[in-house]
Amino acid sequence: MKRIFEINPWQVTTHEFNPADKRLQESITSIGNDYMGMRGNFEEGYSGDSLQGTYLAGVWFPDKTRVGWWKNGYPKYFGKSINAPSFIGIGININGEKLDLATSKIKDFSFSLDMHQGLLTRSFTYLGTTTTVRFEFQRFLHIKQKEAALINVVATVLTGKAKITFTATLDGTVTNEDSNYNEHFWQSCGEDSDQRTIQVKTIPNPYGVPQFTVLLKQGLRHNNHFVKGMVTTTKAGLSEKLTVDLNSGDRYNLEKDVIVVTSRDVEPEMQAQKAAELMTRLQAKSFAENLAEHTAIWQRRWEKSDVVITGNDLAQQGIRFNILQLFMTYYGEDKRLNVGPKGFTGEKYGGATYWDTEAFIFPMYLCVAKPNVTRALLQYRHDQLAGAYQNAKDLGLKGALFPMVTFNGLECHNEWEITFEEIHRNADIAFAIKRYTSYTGDESYVKNEGMDVLVETARFWADRVHYSKWRQKYVMHGVTGPNEYENNVNNNWFTNLMAQWVLQYTLERLPLADPAAQKRVHVSEQEKANWQDIIANMYLPEDHERGIFLQQDDFLDKDLQPAKEIPATERPINQHWSWDKILRSPFIKQADVLQGIYYLDDRFTKEEKERNFDFYEPLTVHESSLSPCVHSILAAELGKKKQSVALYERTARLDLDNYNNDTTDGLHITSMSGSWLAIVQGFAGMRYDKEQLKFNPFVPDNWQNYSFKLNYRNRLIKVAVSHDEVKLDLISGKQLTVMVKDQQVELKEGEVACLKV
Amino acid sequence: MKRIFEINPWQVTTHEFNPADKRLQESITSIGNDYMGMRGNFEEGYSGDSLQGTYLAGVWFPDKTRVGWWKNGYPKYFGKSINAPSFIGIGININGEKLDLATSKIKDFSFSLDMHQGLLTRSFTYLGTTTTVRFEFQRFLHIKQKEAALINVVATVLTGKAKITFTATLDGTVTNEDSNYNEHFWQSCGEDSDQRTIQVKTIPNPYGVPQFTVLLKQGLRHNNHFVKGMVTTTKAGLSEKLTVDLNSGDRYNLEKDVIVVTSRDVEPEMQAQKAAELMTRLQAKSFAENLAEHTAIWQRRWEKSDVVITGNDLAQQGIRFNILQLFMTYYGEDKRLNVGPKGFTGEKYGGATYWDTEAFIFPMYLCVAKPNVTRALLQYRHDQLAGAYQNAKDLGLKGALFPMVTFNGLECHNEWEITFEEIHRNADIAFAIKRYTSYTGDESYVKNEGMDVLVETARFWADRVHYSKWRQKYVMHGVTGPNEYENNVNNNWFTNLMAQWVLQYTLERLPLADPAAQKRVHVSEQEKANWQDIIANMYLPEDHERGIFLQQDDFLDKDLQPAKEIPATERPINQHWSWDKILRSPFIKQADVLQGIYYLDDRFTKEEKERNFDFYEPLTVHESSLSPCVHSILAAELGKKKQSVALYERTARLDLDNYNNDTTDGLHITSMSGSWLAIVQGFAGMRYDKEQLKFNPFVPDNWQNYSFKLNYRNRLIKVAVSHDEVKLDLISGKQLTVMVKDQQVELKEGEVACLKV
Repeated sequence: MKRIFEINPWQVTTHEFNPADKRLQESITSIGNDYMGMRGNFEEGYSGDSLQGTYLAGVWFPDKTRVGWWKNGYPKYFGKSINAPSFIGIGININGEKLDLATSKIKDFSFSLDMHQGLLTRSFTYLGTTTTVRFEFQRFLHIKQKEAALINVVATVLTGKAKITFTATLDGTVTNEDSNYNEHFWQSCGEDSDQRTIQVKTIPNPYGVPQFTVLLKQGLRHNNHFVKGMVTTTKAGLSEKLTVDLNSGDRYNLEKDVIVVTSRDVEPEMQAQKAAELMTRLQAKSFAENLAEHTAIWQRRWEKSDVVITGNDLAQQGIRFNILQLFMTYYGEDKRLNVGPKGFTGEKYGGATYWDTEAFIFPMYLCVAKPNVTRALLQYRHDQLAGAYQNAKDLGLKGALFPMVTFNGLECHNEWEITFEEIHRNADIAFAIKRYTSYTGDESYVKNEGMDVLVETARFWADRVHYSKWRQKYVMHGVTGPNEYENNVNNNWFTNLMAQWVLQYTLERLPLADPAAQKRVHVSEQEKANWQDIIANMYLPEDHERGIFLQQDDFLDKDLQPAKEIPATERPINQHWSWDKILRSPFIKQADVLQGIYYLDDRFTKEEKERNFDFYEPLTVHESSLSPCVHSILAAELGKKKQSVALYERTARLDLDNYNNDTTDGLHITSMSGSWLAIVQGFAGMRYDKEQLKFNPFVPDNWQNYSFKLNYRNRLIKVAVSHDEVKLDLISGKQLTVMVKDQQVELKEGEVACLKV
Repeated sequence: MKRIFEINPWQVTTHEFNPADKRLQESITSIGNDYMGMRGNFEEGYSGDSLQGTYLAGVWFPDKTRVGWWKNGYPKYFGKSINAPSFIGIGININGEKLDLATSKIKDFSFSLDMHQGLLTRSFTYLGTTTTVRFEFQRFLHIKQKEAALINVVATVLTGKAKITFTATLDGTVTNEDSNYNEHFWQSCGEDSDQRTIQVKTIPNPYGVPQFTVLLKQGLRHNNHFVKGMVTTTKAGLSEKLTVDLNSGDRYNLEKDVIVVTSRDVEPEMQAQKAAELMTRLQAKSFAENLAEHTAIWQRRWEKSDVVITGNDLAQQGIRFNILQLFMTYYGEDKRLNVGPKGFTGEKYGGATYWDTEAFIFPMYLCVAKPNVTRALLQYRHDQLAGAYQNAKDLGLKGALFPMVTFNGLECHNEWEITFEEIHRNADIAFAIKRYTSYTGDESYVKNEGMDVLVETARFWADRVHYSKWRQKYVMHGVTGPNEYENNVNNNWFTNLMAQWVLQYTLERLPLADPAAQKRVHVSEQEKANWQDIIANMYLPEDHERGIFLQQDDFLDKDLQPAKEIPATERPINQHWSWDKILRSPFIKQADVLQGIYYLDDRFTKEEKERNFDFYEPLTVHESSLSPCVHSILAAELGKKKQSVALYERTARLDLDNYNNDTTDGLHITSMSGSWLAIVQGFAGMRYDKEQLKFNPFVPDNWQNYSFKLNYRNRLIKVAVSHDEVKLDLISGKQLTVMVKDQQVELKEGEVACLKV
């Protein structure tokens, strides 16, 4: 754990600059506008250790798969949202010295992310031999005009004279740290000094993946007037140099406006013209006006989705940071996109789509966004069915296997123990259909496109199990469950359970599907009978003595000991232990059996839940960012409030406090929803089943109260929980009956229902 | 299966040239002199698909490890015997046309490997528009003067006139097919036109592995007179051009002599001088004289080691090819070397040392070579103990873990399921000590250096098991047995058995070790007691109902079906099935339980052997070259003669008949000893235990007879087996009593004991 930013309900601020924490600082100061994003790199450049990163949503490259020995079934490439051309650069030279926080002497450093609108500000005083200059930067990515980035820098000479040269750059010569051989993924298509543009294109690939073309344009303003510097270009690069002579007390501001258009939206040959139009539109307003417009939109987002915690700024800051980062990554406005595990904050996981979306993002967005957003996330998978058929076929299996990692439906990750084995994703994706249908009440997807997804994933499962004559049961060998600290296990309870669930749910929904869909999927009576047989005879390992479900066949054969006995110096174990030691250990990375209990909540008794929680949680090291939230929710349900709160704190401040010592690589975007779920499903005990919303709330001891809002079937409901009462405010929408602690409560628009608890 | 060479007891010849079989042909026509070797590439070059390869024993490069996601414990590099500068090149141009068998019109092609001495000859008639020319090539790598390669080409003009340009080249610009990014592993240190030398050095590496420097020198002769051509050099390349004008009926021969010295033997600055001396020595004799000298040495090798089979040329050719290729790879004359799985015949497996040496090479070389050769192989591992400690430490374990793949003792292979899990190698290596000691009667190793190896591997095993409270036994999780078609299994019977054996044997030998060794290894009473406890309580999975040992805990849970039901079009399965399908299948790559029964032969009853053989062999696809021999030997012992012979044929002609459809990559050198073992331990039933050699021979139905020789405790014994008698001839050495089919037979030098059977 490492906390380098100060506690504040709306700000993430530090007054320290420690080069050793540069990468961590950069991750946490990442900003995005769900079109593009970047790490908190410095405009003036930085010669010390740093991860430079800019990412454009949906712009990716199929990099050659790295592997020791090839295994049949491996995908040819690993897809990644590559590091895009950097456009934040404003090199600064003062009296001949290059400003570089790795070498320059400075004081009064401040760096702050304002969570109201994702505005990044930074300031410090440069201490030259004869001159001191105060620098103040502001940067934001426009939330309305998505293609626009705005940067403002103000230099104020405090003492001495300063000849300052600003060099505003566009740089397409960037590389990825995770590239195989430091190769460049971008090639130049030309630079235009007059237009201040560079245009680059991803290098060709042999996999038939389209090449992306990106055009970047910059424009400089001083005091809201256009200024022009000396431009020089190099391959894929452009620099515009402007020198000012300032005396003591002088103040100079330079604004850099940037437009980024990509071939996802604009044909390459039209990009220059489009960018010029967008720049004109942007520059029709001042920096302040653009910021105000941007902030106003963010304000509306917060009005719908803010979670307010009173009495605990630590918790407040955590949840706001997570909501901000989630919305900066994905707000459902571009249906072609999905949510990468690191969003725009680093290279790890390559910005591709994982099961994280369905398992962790989906249940939160169901509640905070309009149904068309989650419907689009479902549709995204349906659109990729062709790839999923291919993935199953590549393994020699029937039906559809959704990929572990993808941009287009085809698998693009190549560790066999993950790609071939972590197949529970195929059930997680089906399960999102059920979640959507039961929360929104909208059956249009499950009756049509959703039926394709259900039937084809069911077909996969029916082929993936085999009948063990020895056990007289259907078994499933060679899987990796959500606990990735075990690989290639047999009969992972969670996977077997969820495979069975997919078959059940599919059979249940099939007769209700639209006739055309029923005809299209064509499930024969024989196939149904086979599915029924598998459902009835699926092997779900249990230990009757302990009254627990078994994570996998041999789990009890391990050297079981609680995680708390691992020395602190060896945590996280994934950074200290060999993979061999981890695999053989009894320690669990993230909820596995408990994930199943969380999903199929209503199938298990409280006693079953409790026994399994008490057995597995102590073995769990929570080294996946996806882990603490599920445990927090279950702990809340089981009345283990303290534990629930402790786990919430871990999920809420995972990045702010660098819990797993890996935030340097980027933020854990897809698990950020976990803190929201921990509050709403955990502390507030929200469930939706049998067509009703239910709550069973409590307030953590060290909070005064909290409130959140739910978008539920055309209604906006505010739920405010304090130690002695629950207030339910139907802000808009038709009246509704919800259940609070076994009590039916009638909600009417404009009235606040207040219940003592 | 694909046979492209003709059947002949001493020749491997083809008269066909099919470009589609070029790589296969190249592999089979590989030659070597246990200092260097090469694939059967064409001197004149070849523009079609081909794997160009020259390899120098012990000259390797630590290539960057290729991996998708890094796992703790992975080695930083993958070591490989890199493709060395090519020195066979003699480009040929006839009347302006480049001779290239991919494009030129030819007839009467012949390509032959003479197994008497590894002489490669090739001839064909070039059909030009106005000219026909007969070309004849001879090539061998000098077995006495190891640094020397000799090539002779003869052109005879059959019709028309021919202006022929020969371009003799040295080429250090070669690359590896398996390189990550087609990078060059060699850099030039300079070329010398006058001296006809190039000198190259492996590129730097960040792993502290020494760089190798190699100097190559060529000299041309015509009719045994020196000739000189026009020399041009490029970076790491040298060409020497010579043009002759020939009329119809003219015959011209050109001899290319090559010297290759490496920094393993000669300091870089001394290489030019040393090569000049060696060239002078080589060229003091004619090509014919050098060949005669070379052949004489091979003749002596064959006299000691030939296996003669009468009545079956298929079998005869197979065993001779294997012995030839083995001796061309390794003859125990350089103690720094070991035996790479593909020798000098391809890139696969990188020419490093594997457990193949101890398990398969060792038992043959014990019998065909002097004890100092196998002693040196044992010493090789002792010399690498420092690396083995490091390997264990990297996994967080005590003692020594010998690597899966190595040049220097450090692990250099990075698939976790192999590197971290296929740890049975640590027992195979210890087991070779027992084999050596009991066959040679020489206890000097086991009492000294061997004790370090035994104790440190024992310590590894004692740490690697854990006590399962559930089973009340010591168990071993997360291993890959010899059957690499299962990964990360628990309680692999073979590994558990052999771990137990190492502990037992170590405890048994420890009190007999030299006092200094005992003191050095320092095994406390407590440690001994722990080992005893493990030995007594090791879990060895069995199925009592079937009376078999279980390959691993869940083996019977698989969908068991005989391998013969796999459609022929899907064999070998490793080329047709996804890794997922293979892992979950019941099919076995190579002996696993049966490897344990083969090793600890005297522990099991015939019934136990039979039940296990009958259960496992039908599930075995023999897709490892190491598989058929062990099965052949066991089948012979169990009286399943037909099956034993069929399996022999598969091991003996694995490459000649391209059984596993992968000989294109190179020959399966380390399994070639398997055919020798199948004859000697299988058909002849040779065993050595309780200080006695034993035989229980039979002759395959379709053979007349066979004979082989054994080097046993300072004796050379010839064993000749026919359908009705066994002849034992003690060619040299003190008298000896051996057992033949339960009969004690006294052997005296010079007398032939003849027994009716």
